[in-house]
Parts: sequence; C-alpha cells; structure tokens
Amino acid sequence: MRLTQQQAAEYHERGFLMLESLLDAQEVETLRAAFERDAKVPGPQVVTEDGGTEVRAVYSSHQRQQEYAGLVRDPRILAPVRQLLCDDVYVYQFKINAKPPFGGDKWAWHQDFLAWRIADGLPAPRQVNIGVFLDDVTEFNGPVIFLPGSHRRGLVREGRSASARSEQHLDPDDISLSPGQLAEYVDRHGMTSPKGPAGSVVLFSPEIVHGSSPNMSPFARRLLIATYNDTANLPRPEGEPRPEYVVCRDTAPLRPLAAPFSQVPCAVAS
Amino acid sequence: MRLTQQQAAEYHERGFLMLESLLDAQEVETLRAAFERDAKVPGPQVVTEDGGTEVRAVYSSHQRQQEYAGLVRDPRILAPVRQLLCDDVYVYQFKINAKPPFGGDKWAWHQDFLAWRIADGLPAPRQVNIGVFLDDVTEFNGPVIFLPGSHRRGLVREGRSASARSEQHLDPDDISLSPGQLAEYVDRHGMTSPKGPAGSVVLFSPEIVHGSSPNMSPFARRLLIATYNDTANLPRPEGEPRPEYVVCRDTAPLRPLAAPFSQVPCAVAS
Repeated sequence: MRLTQQQAAEYHERGFLMLESLLDAQEVETLRAAFERDAKVPGPQVVTEDGGTEVRAVYSSHQRQQEYAGLVRDPRILAPVRQLLCDDVYVYQFKINAKPPFGGDKWAWHQDFLAWRIADGLPAPRQVNIGVFLDDVTEFNGPVIFLPGSHRRGLVREGRSASARSEQHLDPDDISLSPGQLAEYVDRHGMTSPKGPAGSVVLFSPEIVHGSSPNMSPFARRLLIATYNDTANLPRPEGEPRPEYVVCRDTAPLRPLAAPFSQVPCAVAS
Repeated sequence: MRLTQQQAAEYHERGFLMLESLLDAQEVETLRAAFERDAKVPGPQVVTEDGGTEVRAVYSSHQRQQEYAGLVRDPRILAPVRQLLCDDVYVYQFKINAKPPFGGDKWAWHQDFLAWRIADGLPAPRQVNIGVFLDDVTEFNGPVIFLPGSHRRGLVREGRSASARSEQHLDPDDISLSPGQLAEYVDRHGMTSPKGPAGSVVLFSPEIVHGSSPNMSPFARRLLIATYNDTANLPRPEGEPRPEYVVCRDTAPLRPLAAPFSQVPCAVAS
C-alpha cells in the first residue's frame, strides 16, 4: 500500500496526486449509504441550504459511522498519508460536501493552510488532504482546480484581508488571492483539475492554491475531504477554539487497519 | 471547402461540429486587432460592464470592420454553412463576447431559437451558428456546454416563463429549461463542451440545448458568435423590432469570397 517513489515525487513536485478508482464500486455504495444515514443525525455538524432542508455538508462522520472510521484508517489511504507526512497523524478535519446542482461554493482561490493558521492557530503546514470521490467527478460538476506546484512557494499572503467582515467567521474571500496574484500564478503554474470515477482519491497539499468550479450539472456531487495533521503540530487557537465537529479533538495517532475498511470492522471512537 | 459527408452527418446527428484550428495564428491576430479597434467605436453596439468601462460584448462588427465583413463571407465558413442550411443565407446576428475573468454569463440552459422566435418572430429554426475562438478555449475559461443530439427533439418549451419580469427584455432565465427537464435531457444526451486553440470554429444548431460555464481563469476570453439565417425565413416581429445592431437588416444573400478573408480585401457593406 506504499506509494511508488515516482508517485511520492509527483506529490511533492506538483502538490497533488491522483489515485484513480482506489475504492471499488461496492465500497462507494457502502460509503454513500453511510453518508445518507449520517446526514439524518441531528446536530450542528449537518449544514443545510440557506432556508432549505437539502443537506450541503456533513462534518466529522468518521466519529459516528463505522464505515468512515474505517476509511480514515484504511491502509490504502493512511499508509500513503504517513509516507508523505510522518508516522503519527490524526484527522484534523473531516467533511463531506454535497455540491448542489447548478451551483456550489464560490470559487475564491485560496490556500487551506492560511485559513487554518488564522482560524485555529495551526503552527505549520504539516498536513495532507485527501479528497474521496463519492460520485464521478467531471469537468461539469464542480471539480477542484489546482495550480500545480504552487504549494512550493509557501503562503501567497500572510493574513486575512483588511476588509474582512467578521472576526469570528472566516470567509473564503478574506483569504483569497487577488486577481493580480492569481494571474501571475496561473501564468506560471497553469491550471489542472483531477477528474475520475467515483472511488478515486486525490491527495493534496495544504499549501496548494486551488479553487472550485460551480456544478453545472443537474445532479448533486458528493466529495469527502479529510485532513490529516502531524500530531506534533496541534492547533493553538488564540481565542475560543472552533467547534469539535469542525476541528477534531481526538489527536491520538491513527494506526492502519490490517485490511481495507470493507473487510474489517472498525469501531467508532467514543 | 465543403464538409465531408461524415462531418455533415455529425452536425445533423449531434447538433454541432468542431473545426479545429480552421484559422491560422496570423488570422487570429488580425481578428483580435479588429475587435480592439471596433470596441472603440462609440455606440449602443458596445456593451460595457455594469458601471465600468471594460468591454463585455460588441455587436455587428462585420458591418464596420473589413476583417469581419470578410470572415462572414470566408469560403472556409460560409461554404459549410450553405451546405448545412441552404444557398441563400445572411447574417442575422453577430456578436463578440469577452467573458471577463472570474465571471461571465449566468449558465441558464436554453435553446437559441426559442429566444429568437419570441423576440423577433423568427418563423423556423433555419439557422446555423458559428462560434469563432479568438482565444484558446479550455475547460477553465467558460466553454459553451452542449447536450449532443438535443436539437433533434425540437423546442423543449413553447414560450417564455410565466414569471418573466419584462415584456421588452428577454432574460435567459425566462426561456431556460427547468431543473427537471434538464435532468432528463442530461441523462439522455450527456454533456460535452468543444475546446481548442484560438482559430477553431464550432458550428451549432439553433435548437441545441446549451449552457455556459463561468470563466474561472484570471484572463478574459473572447468568442465570436455569428448566426446565419435562411433568407426565406425573415423575422416578423409583432411590435417594435429589436435594434439593427442586434438583428441585422441587410438580408441580401451572402456570396463566398474567392479565397480566405486574409487574402482578399472585402469592403464593408454600407
């Protein structure tokens, strides 16, 4: 379950690595069913559309659903993450985003690590993100767009925008690149967006500049994003920490399961 | 300059046909320069951004700039259009759209012919559109998205939305497909968007269902769209006709130039 040297080099060079069809169709079905189940658990971790009941995102499902508890420990995923980062990692954030038809997040171009440094006092960019496609991702349903190699230049900006509207809430626009910065970055790095069938997994750097297309299709598109953090790099929030469903408190190092999550049961951590 | 039988069949089957790099780099430069020049001609045919000076679109440049007068008569373009439609065609509408960075038209899914029937009393879908790429078109800078084959099912809806806000102005939302209609159409036809280098030309049907992605890139993207209409199918507006720069009044049949527009001068029709 280790990445080849070439794969690891590609991750470090480009800032992301695509593992196409890492999970099989049956596993995808299992994960979708667990998502539907988890979206019905009442609580602030379920984000609905403004004024609607349609579920837009669910946080921290790995703390409630054994399929996701298993997935974040699956050797096909956790082993590569440890290889790229270090042996002792835990899940810092876990989110499943259902991008609605004809819409989706604004496409502010940003670097994740800046957001986490500001919001949670995360000391260093010692994270690896994984994106797990729960639906096919095409050019039409809102793929993430990366600027390959942009992570190697560190943070483009140091803090949030002076025009930030709220001290509490971190708006993507507060940390986005300016049009001039982005023009220079795109000229130099180009744009690319990993696409592939459901079950594919993309690993990506917390410092890679990325944006998000709207979903032009008439169908929702579900994407899981989990962030692993080095246990030696715990957040140090200055004020009130963000809620537990957003910033996970269980920082014990994860150990890989002996086999894929679909073959071994995994208890949900209490 | 005729299309092959296979190309013509593809157009009729799928509702569009891509002619990659039909124009060469020098011709593209010539057309860009003519656009920049034409965008400085004062008048209502130049559409600027709300409250800004940035040019978003220019209409009817073929009536003022000899390069575009030549292009619409260029045998590489006019001959295929006549082959697909009929011998006697004229330019019904001509528009160059500069899709701004990080934005662009809303992506209402629609059929052109419905708009023209409502706005101009156009009797039948006896048109061929051409899209001329003045910049490279990629998945990131707002390509048009087609539902291949959808034109063969005729108009999805008969009139404008009951909630239309204005009798005068035709909002794309007034003629767009409902989410349910679009889901059925996408399921059946799929989505595709022709991309290619500047100088490519795409021919497409007035009845094909299409939408438009936003431009995620930091650079504007210029696209010329001209619509040829059968001279036996002239508009019959019920009220005041739309302005001449939107709906061209010169309905004399066009004759192909003897050679590409870059090789023979073409006077601007007065």
